[in-house]
Parts: sequence; structure tokens; C-alpha cells
Amino acid sequence: MSYGNVFKFLKENNKENWLLYTKHDFISKLSNDTLKKEKFLNYLTQDYLFLIQFSKAWSLAVLKSDNLEEMKIAASTVNDLINFEMELHITLCANYGISKFDLENADEENENIAYTRYVLELGYSGDFLDLLSSLAPCVLGYGEIGLNNINTKPNISMYQKWLETYASVEYQDVCKNVGKLIDDAFLLRLGNNFVNTYKWKKVNGIFKKATLLEVDFWNMALK
Amino acid sequence: MSYGNVFKFLKENNKENWLLYTKHDFISKLSNDTLKKEKFLNYLTQDYLFLIQFSKAWSLAVLKSDNLEEMKIAASTVNDLINFEMELHITLCANYGISKFDLENADEENENIAYTRYVLELGYSGDFLDLLSSLAPCVLGYGEIGLNNINTKPNISMYQKWLETYASVEYQDVCKNVGKLIDDAFLLRLGNNFVNTYKWKKVNGIFKKATLLEVDFWNMALK
Amino acid sequence: MSYGNVFKFLKENNKENWLLYTKHDFISKLSNDTLKKEKFLNYLTQDYLFLIQFSKAWSLAVLKSDNLEEMKIAASTVNDLINFEMELHITLCANYGISKFDLENADEENENIAYTRYVLELGYSGDFLDLLSSLAPCVLGYGEIGLNNINTKPNISMYQKWLETYASVEYQDVCKNVGKLIDDAFLLRLGNNFVNTYKWKKVNGIFKKATLLEVDFWNMALK
Amino acid sequence: MSYGNVFKFLKENNKENWLLYTKHDFISKLSNDTLKKEKFLNYLTQDYLFLIQFSKAWSLAVLKSDNLEEMKIAASTVNDLINFEMELHITLCANYGISKFDLENADEENENIAYTRYVLELGYSGDFLDLLSSLAPCVLGYGEIGLNNINTKPNISMYQKWLETYASVEYQDVCKNVGKLIDDAFLLRLGNNFVNTYKWKKVNGIFKKATLLEVDFWNMALK
Repeated sequence: MSYGNVFKFLKENNKENWLLYTKHDFISKLSNDTLKKEKFLNYLTQDYLFLIQFSKAWSLAVLKSDNLEEMKIAASTVNDLINFEMELHITLCANYGISKFDLENADEENENIAYTRYVLELGYSGDFLDLLSSLAPCVLGYGEIGLNNINTKPNISMYQKWLETYASVEYQDVCKNVGKLIDDAFLLRLGNNFVNTYKWKKVNGIFKKATLLEVDFWNMALK
Repeated sequence: MSYGNVFKFLKENNKENWLLYTKHDFISKLSNDTLKKEKFLNYLTQDYLFLIQFSKAWSLAVLKSDNLEEMKIAASTVNDLINFEMELHITLCANYGISKFDLENADEENENIAYTRYVLELGYSGDFLDLLSSLAPCVLGYGEIGLNNINTKPNISMYQKWLETYASVEYQDVCKNVGKLIDDAFLLRLGNNFVNTYKWKKVNGIFKKATLLEVDFWNMALK
Repeated sequence: MSYGNVFKFLKENNKENWLLYTKHDFISKLSNDTLKKEKFLNYLTQDYLFLIQFSKAWSLAVLKSDNLEEMKIAASTVNDLINFEMELHITLCANYGISKFDLENADEENENIAYTRYVLELGYSGDFLDLLSSLAPCVLGYGEIGLNNINTKPNISMYQKWLETYASVEYQDVCKNVGKLIDDAFLLRLGNNFVNTYKWKKVNGIFKKATLLEVDFWNMALK
Repeated sequence: MSYGNVFKFLKENNKENWLLYTKHDFISKLSNDTLKKEKFLNYLTQDYLFLIQFSKAWSLAVLKSDNLEEMKIAASTVNDLINFEMELHITLCANYGISKFDLENADEENENIAYTRYVLELGYSGDFLDLLSSLAPCVLGYGEIGLNNINTKPNISMYQKWLETYASVEYQDVCKNVGKLIDDAFLLRLGNNFVNTYKWKKVNGIFKKATLLEVDFWNMALK
């Protein structure tokens, strides 16, 4: 499992929180079928609202790009999220009894607001590296959770399907591409010696905070 | 007590949450001396971090202004917050044993992030009315808390002083001016019949959400 | 030819400038083969730089959207521009002897900066309607130029091809969709009586200014 | 005359354009009384519109600051510009026969839009260093023009007064403070070896472009 060098270093500086997030009770309970379905469904609803803001954050990545290659990846991510993932999510929710109306009229929980607005504000106030560092825990954390549980087979089919999504080749490819985007972006802007820069200290703070906001997102899902 | 018409209507549409906020246990405990000092000191530290982001949000009000009058009020608010309030806050904290170093190195709690980034993101993505509607619960809510407790006299002097700050003529004038800024801004953009506009529905959602994020800020302070 | 009601009204309030733009000498000279090729090639180079900023402006439309339908159109526009139009433009330029290296290293002319940054800044400081009103002269003006010249047949093949691009069914469909996006967005936010709102006065100012900046873009191309 | 190291290096990499700007005909004509008064008055009107956008750009500097010291300088600059300079400018214009109504209803010229929106968009899309590099030619260039002409004594009193403003101790202090802000900001973020960074190349491009947009601002004033 490798989503690039920068991500590896960011995780190493943030080991404890990273485990709080990727080994969260929400995942354990989902893996062993002890997660209450209503909690999972509520999570899916919040995840719909999350995806909207998350797509907006990736739109800021287009604006903060320094070259066409970066813009291309960011733009296709925005488009995939809004014009494809969103439909899949809506269909999935409909299969589980949550209508599109329910999704659109659901209230964003404070923990959901906390993470999404943190990322978006960084996307506006910060630069490309700041923004990517706040997006990484989400994109790559889910990839890692997928891989960690590649042999986990919950009996509840919607839990099984959820784990499969993030362990899938398709999602793993997304993670590898985003990992490479991050590596290339850091190398371009900060050079090989990036761990000795002012920016490096800053992005580690961002990565840590974003990880803790993800932990709270799981906490919310278990409330 | 009147901080303008728009604020009055926003509160009326959000009565229950408004009471959850302005009559929060944090205020009751502070008023009757049962709030633990360490919790108050932690609150002051988070409030320092809050003020930084809050000043940035008011800077966005300069950018989202439509005329020089709006710009003037927003600009002097930014300057007052950063070049005066901030020093007062740092001095106050120092008197209570929290050094400037402590303030600058404190970790922002997630509930603090949630409210400030919600406001800032609205300041970037939204317009002047959206931004003001998210700032109102903070500015005007504290004014109302000050007035509600004008005859409350806790024995603990730092609690007494805190209540006095927001009940003071100076702070009440700030609230009246911000209330007028809000009324004028709505009138200019939406006309007299503003309660029948699409925007009105939107800003009520913002005001409600910001109020709930304030409630969570108090919850954090009591944790 | 109809790209919607709002566009029709915006043009009617801005007749003279609209003609300065859509009937500009650049178009006449291109139509009758009297445009110097080096000027056209320079225009294509500036247009490459324009497209980058223009895609970024459409990314702001994703951020300023109020619902999923608006986000979808904006997101697919961003993606089309960056991942398809851009490649077509680069290939076209290569066919005419302008390498990708030349494009990437060309200097943005001040008139190019003026229009693109005007639009981008509005996208940041303004709302969805402000942004669309600044994008409309470009998207829909080119559509109208295409239709105006549907029977114009310059001998110089690259001029012919340029006119055909904007007269094509594909481009005309883009214009109809954007026209509908604009109509829907105004109706949603301002209601049927939108011409009597404060915002209407503002967006007419924006549309006028953007049109004049387009005129200057053609002036630049003829310098 | 020294407004800091970073500024010195930026100028050295941009010598020719810098002279085009600071030794522009507008200044020569103003210095020897051959500038037509109507052109100067038109320049003052555009400068009023410029100041509004320029204040907004400095508001973005508050948002892009990394610490309280940076915020303080940016915030007091915003406040000084909006609540003091603006009034001085309005009074000055009134003395010369341009009413406040005239100022507020004047049309922004395209060259004015070009520079201000370039700076503002950088303030949004870029970071603190990008923004400062685009503001420097204006703030520090006017300071240098003031010093260059400290012994120039045009007979026309409003020209004399204009030169005196920028040669004054007060304005020179502003320049020294901004020069120091820039030096400190570069040092903090890029270290001593800043001229060997990716960012350095980028900000030189920005400084150059902003200088050329200032040249066009003078060109506009002479049209």
C-alpha cells in the first residue's frame, strides 16, 4: 500500500491520531455487524451532504493549481464527484430507503460542518498544498480503511458493499493518483528537501487537524 | 433592547435554539459562581483563537460590501478587533495567568473550528447578507447575554467583569451599530418586503445553524 | 436564436456596446480574409491563456451554486473546458505552428488580464448571478457571432474553421444550456419580477463592463 | 532610500519595466506643469475607484496572514485607507471641483480594472507573498516617485501637493513599514535563501506584471 511519500511522512508525524481515525469503532462495528443500521443510514445521509462540500473543495483545487496538469486532475475529480459519485450515492441511499428528498432536506450535523468548512476555508485562505493536506485524510484514509479490511466480510450486505467500495481497484487507483498529485505538488513547490521548510510544519498541523475532524465525524455517526 | 428589525425577525424564527444559546448552562454557572475556573480559563483561550478567525471574517465583510459606508463599518470593526480587543484579551488572560505564549500555542477545539470556519466559508462563498447573518448570533447574542444579566453579580470577579463587558454601554453601542448595518444592508438589497424573498429563507437557515454552533461552543466550554 | 430571457434583457440594456463587441473589426476582417495571420495566431495564443482563467471562473460557479443541478452544469463545464477544449485548442495551435511550449510560455497581455481577472474576482467577491452575468458576454457572445456568420465563408481555412466552431450545433447547444442555467438561476433567486430588483441593476453593470472588456480583447488582437 | 531587501531584488530583476513605470511621462508632465488639468482630475477620479479596490486587496492580506503581527499591519492599513485616506481623497477632489457624487458615479476604466482585479484575484487565489508582491509596485513605487521628485517644484499647486504627499515623512514611513512587512514575510516563509525557491520565480512574475499594469494605468491617465 503506497499513496506516495508525502502522505507517508504526514502519517508518521501523526501516528496516534491516524489510528484513532482509521481504526475507529465505527469501522470495527461495521466490520463485525454490530453497527446499528439506523446509524449507518444516518451516516450515509451526512455523507451525501459531505460530498457536496467536498466537491466544492476540489473545485478550489482547480483555482489553486499552478499548471494544466494539476488543473486536469482537480477538474476531473470535481466532475466525477458531482456527475457520477453523487448519482451512485443517491441510488444507493434510495435502495436503502432514503429518498432524494430526504437527502436534500437533511440537516448538516455540526461535526460534518466542522470538517467540510475547515477544508473549504483552507481551500480559500490557503494554497494548493494546504488544501491537499486537508483533503488527504479523507481520500487516502478511506483507501487505507478499504485495504485494512479487504478480507473482512460482514454479513450485512450494505456494510460489505461499503467496505468493498473503498477496497476496490477503482478507488485504490484514485488514491494512488491523488498520492502522486500530492507528491508532485510538494516537489514542484518545495523541492526535495520539503521536510525542512516552514510550509511542512504548517501542513502537518493541517493534516493532524483534518484527521481529528474525521475522528469526530465517526463519533457523530455513532452518537 | 433593540438591535434592529432583521435581527428581531431572525430570532423569532429561531426561538428555541436562541434560548438554548443565550440561556446556556455556561452562562447560568458563570452567573452563580458554580463555573469551574479552569473551564473559564480554557474558554478564554479558545476565545482568543476565535477572535483571530472572527477578525478575518469581518475582513471578508469589507470585500463583500457594496458601498463605502458598509466598507467603513467593516474596516473599523476589523481594526478594533485586531488592534484593540486583541490586546485587551491578551492582557486580561495574562492577569489570569494565561501567557501570550500559551494563547498562541493552544490547540483550536473542534467546536471552535466548526463555528469559525462555517462563518469564514460563508464569507467567501456567500454574499454580504449571508456573512452578516452568520456573524449576528455572535455579536448580538453576546450583547443580549450582557443585557439579560445586567443585574447579575457573581462574586468571582473575573465572571463579574466578563458580564460587565457585554452589558457595557460601549458593547451595546457596537450591537446597535451592527444591528443598523444589518437592517440597512437587507433594505438596500432586498427592499422592504425582504421576508418574502428567496434570500430570506436562506439567511434564516444560516442564522439557525450559526446559533447551534454557538451552543456547541458553550458545550465545549463546559466539557 | 434564443439563449434565454435574462440574456435578452441584458443585451437590450446594453445595445450599443453589444454591437461594438459582436460586430468588431476583428470579426469583419476574419470574415473577409483581411485579418493578418500573425494577428490571428497571437489571438489563439492569448485565447489559450484565457481558457485557463475561464475554467477557473467556472470552478467558482461550482462553489457559488445553490443546488446540485447548478453544480452539475458548472462541474461538467469545468471538466469539458480543461480536459477536452484545452486539448483541442492545443492541437489546433500545433497545426498552425504554435507549440505547446509557446503557449505555456506566452505572456498574458494586459487586456487579457483585465477581462479574466474581472470575471474571477467577481466569482470570488460576488454571487452566482454576478458571476454568470460576467461570463455571459463571452459564452453567449461567441455563440451569437457564430450564428451571425453562419453563411460567411472566408477562404482562409483556419478562419473558416474558427467561425464554424461557434456556429456548430454543439456550441449552440452549450449556449442554450448556459442561457437556461442563467434563466433558472435568476428565477430561483429573484423571482419573476427580477427586473425590478437591486440585483438586476448590479448585474447589468457587470454585463456592460464585461462586454467592454471583450471589446478590448478584440482591440488587443488587432494591435 | 530603502524599502527592504526583497523589494530591492524584485526591482533588480525588473529594471526596465520599473523605469517605464516610475519615470513615466505622466510624472514628467506633472513635474514640469505640462500635464493637462483635466487629465489630472480624471486620474484623481480613477484613483478614488482604485482606492476602494486597493482597500479590499489589503483586507485579503488580513485573511492571508499567518500571525497576529501580520494581521495587525494589514488591518490598520485597511482602516487607514478606508476611514482616513478615502476622506482626504474625497476632500481633495471636492477642492478641485469633483463632487463625491461624481466620484461614486464615475466609470472604472479598463486599465484601472486590469490592475485592481489582477491584485484582488491574486489575493484570493494566491498566498500572502503573492499578494504583497502585487501590491508592492503601487505602495513602494509611489514612495520612490515621491523621493525621486523631492526637489521638483511644479508651479501648479495641485501637482506640487501631489508630489509632496508621496515624498512626505508620513508616506515614506508607510513604505518602510510595508518594506519590512514584506522582508519579514519572505524570511518567515522561505528562509534566507529565498531567491533560490520556486516561489521566488513566481513572485517575480507577479511583480513584473503588476508593474506593467501600473504603466498602463499611467497610459490611461494620459489618453
